[in-house]
Amino acid sequence: MLIQGYPDPGEGLRLHLNENTAGCSPRVLAALQTLSREQAGFYPDYQEAIEACSAHLGVPSDELLLTNGLDEGILAAAVCATRDRTIAEPEAIVVMPAFDMYAACADATGARVVEVPMGADFAFPTVAVLAAINERTRIIFLTTPNNPTGQSIESSIILRIAAAAPQAIVFVDEAYADFAGETLLGSQEARRVTNIVVGRTFAKAHGLAALRVGAVVADAGVLEGFRRVVPPYSLNVCAAVALCAALDDTEYYNWYLDQVRSSKEALYGCLDRLDVRYWTSAANFVLADFGSELRRVVDGLAARQVFIRDRSLDPACPRCARITAGVLAHTRTCISALEEVMCGAAS
Amino acid sequence: MLIQGYPDPGEGLRLHLNENTAGCSPRVLAALQTLSREQAGFYPDYQEAIEACSAHLGVPSDELLLTNGLDEGILAAAVCATRDRTIAEPEAIVVMPAFDMYAACADATGARVVEVPMGADFAFPTVAVLAAINERTRIIFLTTPNNPTGQSIESSIILRIAAAAPQAIVFVDEAYADFAGETLLGSQEARRVTNIVVGRTFAKAHGLAALRVGAVVADAGVLEGFRRVVPPYSLNVCAAVALCAALDDTEYYNWYLDQVRSSKEALYGCLDRLDVRYWTSAANFVLADFGSELRRVVDGLAARQVFIRDRSLDPACPRCARITAGVLAHTRTCISALEEVMCGAAS
Repeated sequence: MLIQGYPDPGEGLRLHLNENTAGCSPRVLAALQTLSREQAGFYPDYQEAIEACSAHLGVPSDELLLTNGLDEGILAAAVCATRDRTIAEPEAIVVMPAFDMYAACADATGARVVEVPMGADFAFPTVAVLAAINERTRIIFLTTPNNPTGQSIESSIILRIAAAAPQAIVFVDEAYADFAGETLLGSQEARRVTNIVVGRTFAKAHGLAALRVGAVVADAGVLEGFRRVVPPYSLNVCAAVALCAALDDTEYYNWYLDQVRSSKEALYGCLDRLDVRYWTSAANFVLADFGSELRRVVDGLAARQVFIRDRSLDPACPRCARITAGVLAHTRTCISALEEVMCGAAS
Repeated sequence: MLIQGYPDPGEGLRLHLNENTAGCSPRVLAALQTLSREQAGFYPDYQEAIEACSAHLGVPSDELLLTNGLDEGILAAAVCATRDRTIAEPEAIVVMPAFDMYAACADATGARVVEVPMGADFAFPTVAVLAAINERTRIIFLTTPNNPTGQSIESSIILRIAAAAPQAIVFVDEAYADFAGETLLGSQEARRVTNIVVGRTFAKAHGLAALRVGAVVADAGVLEGFRRVVPPYSLNVCAAVALCAALDDTEYYNWYLDQVRSSKEALYGCLDRLDVRYWTSAANFVLADFGSELRRVVDGLAARQVFIRDRSLDPACPRCARITAGVLAHTRTCISALEEVMCGAAS
C-alpha cells in the first residue's frame, strides 16, 4: 500500500513513526546471530514463538495467530469480514482520525469505508458509531489507545458496539496497549464476546518494527477464518526467533516503558511552557496542536535533524503533529530543538 | 492457512518441501550479522533490495513488487482480482494438480474455485482451460514449471489464455523458473500483455524459504492494484538484507543449480533401475508413481530419516510422491534408502 511520502530521516532522530527509539533488545541481535544456513533455507516452525507469545499475552494458543506485523492481521480481518459475496456492498466503520491501514485494507477488499469523526477533544463518538452500524457493516476498526490521539476507549463502550453489530468483526487494535498498561485481553467479559478480535504488535514496546511480528487474538472459531487467509509461513524465521528473545528480556521491556513515561512527562512540561495545546496520551507519542506555527515547527525540527509527524493533512486533526516519546535522551534533544524553533519565533 | 499435516522431520533429510537442501548462501548469514538494534527497531527501507531484484530479474522497478514470500503475492492477486463487488460469484481457475495456495487464497476471498484437471501424463489442458473461462473468471493460476509435476507450459499457450480472459489476472507462478532456465520475463511479447502477472520466489534456488521473499512482476498499472493490498512494510528487514546478499552470490546460485541438475539425473537413474514411473522435471523435484508400493516407500524412507512428500491425497496424482532434488550428496542418501526399501521388498 502507498504510505504518505516522508523525507528520509537519514541519520536524524526518527520521532515520526512511533518506533522504539532504542531499537530492539540486544538479546534479539544475539538470537539472530545463532541462525544457521539451514534455518534460513527451510520453512520455519513457529511452535516456540507461539508458546512464548501465548504465555506473554495470557491466552491459549488456539486463540492466537502470529502475523507478519499487525498490518497483516488488519488485512486478514478485512478479507475475512468481507468474504461473504452475497453482501454486495460491505461496509467498514473507521473512527477518524485513525491509522491509515484500516481504510486501505477495507478498500483493498472492495468494502465501502464509513468514516465516523471523533467528538470534541477526540472524545470517542459512541452514539455516532452505533448509528453508523447497519446490516451491511462487516468490520469496525477501533484503536485503544488511539493513534494519533493517544486516547483510550472504555471497554464498556467496545462491548456495546460489539453487541450492536453481531454480524461484524470488531477489530480492536491494541498496538500501543503496552504503554497504556491495560488490555481487553485481561477482561474475561470481553474475551467471551466472539466478534471482538484484538490485534497486538511487538513493533513498539519490544522494538521489533523491522522484524514484522504482530498477533491477533480471538475466539478459536473466529480465528479459523483468519487462518484461512494468512499464509502458513507468513512469519519470517527471524521474526519468530526475535520474538522469543524479546519476550524473554522483561528488564529491557520495563526499562523502555519507563523511558516512555518519563519522555511523555518531559514533553508535556515543554509543551506547557511553550503554551502549545496537546492531549495527554496513553501511548508512546503525544499529539500537539501547533496552530499556525505547525509548518515552521515541523520544518524547523527537520532542519535540526529531528523528525516528527505532520498529521495536519487529516481533517480530523488539522494543525497537529505527532511526536514519538521514546528514550528520554532522545526526547530531550527534541525538546531543545522545539524550544529553539519556537522561542526563536517569539523573540 | 492450514497446511497438510506432516511429521516433523527433526534432524532428518527434508526432501518433502522443495527446499534448498544446502540452505542459504553463507553470505546471507554474514549480512544478517551486520544488523543493528536500530535496523531491527525501525521500519525498513527497501530501496536497495528493490534495485538489486530489479536488476536480477531484468525488469524496471515500477513493474516489480517484493512480497513476504510468493504466498503473499498469490494472496494479493486473489484479493485484487476479486475486489469488484459487482461480480457476485467470481471464479478462480486452478489447473490440477497444483500448489495448495491457489485454491486456499481464492477461497479466502470468497471466490469459487474451478478446477481443471491436466490431461494424460500431466499434459497441459489448454482446451479445457479455455472452455472454463467465462465472464465470472477473475483469476487463472498457472505454474511453470508446475508443482508437483515439474512440467512447463509453453509461453504461446499462456498468451492464448491471457487473450481469452482479458478481464482476469493470469497469475503465472514461476517459483521454479530458476531451475528450468526459462522465464516469461524474457519474452517481450508476454511482458506487453497487461493481464499476465508473473510470480517469483527466492525460497528455492536462493535458499531463502524461511526469510520469506518473493516478487511479483506485472504492468505498472496492474501492479498499482497489488500495492493497494500488500502492506507497505510487508518485507522483514532480514528478508531485504538477505535478498541483496543472496543475489550477490552468483557462484553459490550456479553451484546449486548444477547440484539440482546432477541430483535429478541421479534420481532418474535410480527410478529407472527400480522400474518406477516418473516424469522428467524442469524444477528441483521429481514426481514418481510408486503404485501400490507408495505407502511402504514413504514410510520406509521416513523410518530412515528421509522425508519425501506423499502427494497421493490429490486425485490428480494418485500413488505419487514428490522428491526434492537438492545437494547431490543428499540425493544419494535418498537413493540408498530408496533402494534399500524397494529392493528389500523384492527379495
